[in-house]
Amino acid sequence: MRTSASCRRWNASSPEARGPRLVIQTLCIVGVGLIGGSLARDLRRLGRVREVVGVSRNAAHLARARELGFIDRYSTDVAHGVDGADMVVVAVPLGAMRAVFSRMRDHLADGAVVTDVGSAKVSVIQAAHDAFGGVPPWLVPGHPIAGNENSGVEAAMEGLFDGRRVILTPTATSDAQAVARVHDMWQWVGAQVLSMDPRHHDEVLAATSHLPHMLAYTLVDVLGRMQDRVEIFRYAAGGFRDFTRIASSDPQMWHDICVANREALTEVLERFGADLAILLDAVRSGDGEYLHQVFTRAKALRDRYTQDTGE
Amino acid sequence: MRTSASCRRWNASSPEARGPRLVIQTLCIVGVGLIGGSLARDLRRLGRVREVVGVSRNAAHLARARELGFIDRYSTDVAHGVDGADMVVVAVPLGAMRAVFSRMRDHLADGAVVTDVGSAKVSVIQAAHDAFGGVPPWLVPGHPIAGNENSGVEAAMEGLFDGRRVILTPTATSDAQAVARVHDMWQWVGAQVLSMDPRHHDEVLAATSHLPHMLAYTLVDVLGRMQDRVEIFRYAAGGFRDFTRIASSDPQMWHDICVANREALTEVLERFGADLAILLDAVRSGDGEYLHQVFTRAKALRDRYTQDTGE
Repeated sequence: MRTSASCRRWNASSPEARGPRLVIQTLCIVGVGLIGGSLARDLRRLGRVREVVGVSRNAAHLARARELGFIDRYSTDVAHGVDGADMVVVAVPLGAMRAVFSRMRDHLADGAVVTDVGSAKVSVIQAAHDAFGGVPPWLVPGHPIAGNENSGVEAAMEGLFDGRRVILTPTATSDAQAVARVHDMWQWVGAQVLSMDPRHHDEVLAATSHLPHMLAYTLVDVLGRMQDRVEIFRYAAGGFRDFTRIASSDPQMWHDICVANREALTEVLERFGADLAILLDAVRSGDGEYLHQVFTRAKALRDRYTQDTGE
Repeated sequence: MRTSASCRRWNASSPEARGPRLVIQTLCIVGVGLIGGSLARDLRRLGRVREVVGVSRNAAHLARARELGFIDRYSTDVAHGVDGADMVVVAVPLGAMRAVFSRMRDHLADGAVVTDVGSAKVSVIQAAHDAFGGVPPWLVPGHPIAGNENSGVEAAMEGLFDGRRVILTPTATSDAQAVARVHDMWQWVGAQVLSMDPRHHDEVLAATSHLPHMLAYTLVDVLGRMQDRVEIFRYAAGGFRDFTRIASSDPQMWHDICVANREALTEVLERFGADLAILLDAVRSGDGEYLHQVFTRAKALRDRYTQDTGE
């Protein structure tokens, strides 16, 4: 049995182990969807993994993942899947993290590193704490900012992480070599890997990702309940389609994110709601000066931002 | 002088006048920006216009438009620009409509048709009523749903209207031949031309275009005033960029739209605000069932919608 106290070392003391020949021996992907499937696919393509084991509750998804060549073998049991793996990537919805951690607890190999891809990090660390009886040093919480509105293994794509950011949120007890291994894995698939405090990550993501999703879902829902909704959607222009693309995201995943990151999301939703109420007053009363100020500030900021990132 | 009472006929009684050889003799574009510039460019390219006169307050923009080959000649005076034109397209911000109409009032040629491209139609009809002393039969209010976040003549592009919708909102007094001429003009550049009641147009656009713009502007503004805004924008993912693209739109144009379509926009903003408040409560209290319902409804609706339009 593995405990959080066992600060396991990755058996890579020789210099060449950090060189270009480095591979993962057995990678276990728990949750073979868009993120897990794309990661397995790229690591295989790049020759960075010798064997991939897929785990899911859904055997049909696993069979399809093997058919697509993303995994070598599979199991519907986490305990069986992680057996012998030196790298475990947990890519399940946030609400399933704790159960997955609990199930793997007594079955992880010595030296195994565990990471996840959840969109909120404090809750994952709490789930690990609950499941392992403390936050293990070999757990490296992570978040690839690379999803899109699609989900499932069929949506897995080559190069999904290329040029995208992956935020790792190691804790005070995280083992440096474990962090390095997860860092390397994401670099191999082309990601820019960064480190952030878990709570800060959750605040930043609440603002840039979780809040926009709430707005897009609410907008589509509001319009969908209007009397002339058929016409409304018929006349929607390109801007609307871009704007609401994220409302096609997986409802269960976003349900879990809202519950997991409730505190930070509540705060930004409150800020947004307060600002929108002021804007509504300005529209209602015809306060053009206020509107012009807000639009000008926002445009300047977005233009600068898009220039900064070259997009 | 032209008055609203003179129900002028387009001098095209011969059958071939409605055939493929039909062209605009002299097209006057008032406001040579993204929409006006793109329209002039395509009509010229397609050989559907013999001469294009550009009008703008800014002589440098006009010189540039001529340099780019979109217009033949230009004037900074509306009265001079419309002189002799058989088709006048007013493509200025909504707030400038009334002044432009007033200035052209005594200078339009007999048989000239006037149309506009404003994003709200009731206010344009009111402006015309004020300027012309009644809504003229030769005025055909229109709205090409084809803009993007760019503006200015440099942003004008070939094929901007190809496959896009143009909504005409003729009034009870509109002359059928004037409507037909505007209809044809937009069809020539590839648009799908539809007709709608002006008030209904404004309600539909408030929901599908004006409200999303308010949300995008407010979101960027809220994030821009957060303490860690640099980091926030750095970690923003693709969904955020899509979502906020429309916040890079021209502030003056959107100021004018808010003022012009204030009634319909107020109503959808109120609906949205009320729904967002309920969602906020659900996030705060962890009401996962409610959240899951909203997200599922919205996803189903958007997926169906995007399937319908094949996008």
